[in-house]
Amino acid sequence: MRLVIIGGSDAGISAGLRARQVNPALETVLLLADAFPNYSICGLPFYISGETPDWRQLAHRGREELEAAGLELLLEHEARSIDLQAKTVRAYQTDGQPVELSYDCLVIATGAEPIRPPIAGLELEGVHLLHTVEDSIAVRERVVERSSSRALVVGGGYIGLEMADALVHRRLKVTLVEQAETVMPTVDPSLGRLIGQELRRHGVDVMNEMAIHALEATSDGIRALGSQALPQSFDLVLVVVGVRPSSRLAQEAGLSTGVREAIRVNRRMETGHEGVYAAGDCVETWHRLLERSVYLPLGTTAHKQGRVAGENAAGGCREFAGSLGTQVVKVFDLAVARTGLGDMEAAEAGFDPLTVECQAWDHKVYYPGAHRLTLRVTGDRRTGRLLGAQIVGHHQAQVAKRIDIFANALYEGLTVDAVNDLDLSYTPPLGAPWDPVQVAAQEWLLRA
Amino acid sequence: MRLVIIGGSDAGISAGLRARQVNPALETVLLLADAFPNYSICGLPFYISGETPDWRQLAHRGREELEAAGLELLLEHEARSIDLQAKTVRAYQTDGQPVELSYDCLVIATGAEPIRPPIAGLELEGVHLLHTVEDSIAVRERVVERSSSRALVVGGGYIGLEMADALVHRRLKVTLVEQAETVMPTVDPSLGRLIGQELRRHGVDVMNEMAIHALEATSDGIRALGSQALPQSFDLVLVVVGVRPSSRLAQEAGLSTGVREAIRVNRRMETGHEGVYAAGDCVETWHRLLERSVYLPLGTTAHKQGRVAGENAAGGCREFAGSLGTQVVKVFDLAVARTGLGDMEAAEAGFDPLTVECQAWDHKVYYPGAHRLTLRVTGDRRTGRLLGAQIVGHHQAQVAKRIDIFANALYEGLTVDAVNDLDLSYTPPLGAPWDPVQVAAQEWLLRA
Repeated sequence: MRLVIIGGSDAGISAGLRARQVNPALETVLLLADAFPNYSICGLPFYISGETPDWRQLAHRGREELEAAGLELLLEHEARSIDLQAKTVRAYQTDGQPVELSYDCLVIATGAEPIRPPIAGLELEGVHLLHTVEDSIAVRERVVERSSSRALVVGGGYIGLEMADALVHRRLKVTLVEQAETVMPTVDPSLGRLIGQELRRHGVDVMNEMAIHALEATSDGIRALGSQALPQSFDLVLVVVGVRPSSRLAQEAGLSTGVREAIRVNRRMETGHEGVYAAGDCVETWHRLLERSVYLPLGTTAHKQGRVAGENAAGGCREFAGSLGTQVVKVFDLAVARTGLGDMEAAEAGFDPLTVECQAWDHKVYYPGAHRLTLRVTGDRRTGRLLGAQIVGHHQAQVAKRIDIFANALYEGLTVDAVNDLDLSYTPPLGAPWDPVQVAAQEWLLRA
Repeated sequence: MRLVIIGGSDAGISAGLRARQVNPALETVLLLADAFPNYSICGLPFYISGETPDWRQLAHRGREELEAAGLELLLEHEARSIDLQAKTVRAYQTDGQPVELSYDCLVIATGAEPIRPPIAGLELEGVHLLHTVEDSIAVRERVVERSSSRALVVGGGYIGLEMADALVHRRLKVTLVEQAETVMPTVDPSLGRLIGQELRRHGVDVMNEMAIHALEATSDGIRALGSQALPQSFDLVLVVVGVRPSSRLAQEAGLSTGVREAIRVNRRMETGHEGVYAAGDCVETWHRLLERSVYLPLGTTAHKQGRVAGENAAGGCREFAGSLGTQVVKVFDLAVARTGLGDMEAAEAGFDPLTVECQAWDHKVYYPGAHRLTLRVTGDRRTGRLLGAQIVGHHQAQVAKRIDIFANALYEGLTVDAVNDLDLSYTPPLGAPWDPVQVAAQEWLLRA
């Protein structure tokens, strides 16, 4: 029995490792387009900032560890076609040499690629759509060796924010533009404004409600033309406006796609073609709260889906429990986290949402170093059910694991009121007898 | 309608505030034996250490705030008897003046008092059983003004550990003795040993498996006689070997008591006598996992039980969801947390427990400042159900809110395996794609 996995990032590696746990006799071959198995794409901003000095550190696991776990790695083998009838994958090595591999089971984990927005000049030198390890090495080189000093970040989503942070760390003068009224449009505007303040506090020039139409090379560097005037020129432009599924290989093989052309899968990560699974940023993701498929590419989800695909490919029977879109990002001194649905998303999904915002200290204020958190809780007026939560606060104020308390409550379908019943830990230096998440839940109840 | 509440600490105040939320017309009178309403007992170690300069900062809420919420506070009114038939409480002011109050509903929240162990010499000057704000003021005075330099802490539970930390902060030479083989016997010995190492690293002389029989005054200070030789003398001795319920008032009124003489209550916090509720450290606590009453005094539980009692006293209908014994303590640079059952407790309760220990980084190690966590997960071999968890790690490594992820999984009765399905947040500076709690769950599954 041979399992072939296309892709060596989060989903592919998780699938391979899990398959070998479930069936240690399974021959498991991974095809990787590049030479970097199991790299943490999420770590690239910190390599660019210099906080992670060497890109080799970004591997979740080294090649030896993966091979010791029984994975056969074919690096620099780009899969170009799948024959579902013959059960073969055709790949090409960097020198053009073709390789044909037959499989009994297949996991497609081809990931995502950056969206190329309709901006003229994306091909100019100094303009980067960040995605691969090579991209990041190129950007870092540009920052360090050619001493770029003026950077433009196009896109205020979480990668844009991390990149702005990284470039300020490198002492560049950074301008960040975002089409929406606030940065990080995945959280509500009141929290987006707090993040905007944090960016400005660290010298970032933030421009909201602005679209870039074109980039032009001038003698002084790159100029950006957009819906607002942007007189200065830049040495470096990062265009990070989101990603889309790398699903062409699957589509060309005849597999179905759905939301945003992501590969269609059921909760067992089956594509509908026997023995063929798909997982990670290239597939549709089951949303646990919406009870339908969405496109929601996240590293955590890719790991979970990969594990499910690998388990099932090895003969197991497991369902993906679904995503809640839980995420956190560190932006300078702040952590920003969300889970579940925001007010607008909840309304669109047919709920009767109420969102309440409040502030609470992360720990008893009489113990030094307390930080104020801003929390937003969304619940359904009709049923009292918790629908989502958002938190902004100091990155050392346990924001990330506090959003997880809400995420777990959502996972179980708890009411907002039941959050008050959770037996959470407390000591004055690290919390409060009613944790901030419970203070927020109580505030919601008073207003509901 | 008048609600009388005996006790102005966590449970009593929570009851009063909640009762007034539910029924703003309810006359709500609180009797306090001392002059310190709503003080955070858990904060006393930090007042002694000096990290909290003024004891007045320890109030969760000021008197004005409580009165603005509609609570009538009778300070320095010690309740000495309850007449359940006549529905009256008799209290005495500090000058001996009696006061009789009639009630329609009563909440008894008399808290706990330190256990006085069978050690001769507890009455000596310089020996303190910490409990009240006054005790702590006396200890702090002794430390600061009489410049004590040698301290003995009897008891290695969480208060003993916090006190050792506080006194080292004051530059005292501290000896800590504990009867069990490791400190903090509420976590498993392997973790207790990590805490012992942390104490020693900060200069605390830790003596395990040692009982103290007597304390004696000598010209050089206080000497301690015990099962091992303790040649040095001390200027200050803190005896902190646990607490017991202050239930005498309730007992003398004719109310039933149960486990360790705590006041017997049902999950509505009813004592069995109509209109009479009890909550907090003076009552039995419903354990959600054991499905029986235990004595488990914690500030978080007192707040929750008080809230339930207040809601029901005001005409509501709410049940206490139960405790899991979730707790965390900061000891120097470490946080130590637990929830649910340890291996031995689980076996005693009739489960077939397996406990697995592992280590994991709190965040991706390529981002600076990662800390190694030690996690223990206990699950039931027969059903796969999660039974408990313990974590030790740096206090800035989100240990407190990570134990809460396990606490929530316990609350819902999840299996260990289901912990892997939880959609937890991730960014490299604050976590990992599989959070350490999931790494531990996977380790358990591999060994189960």
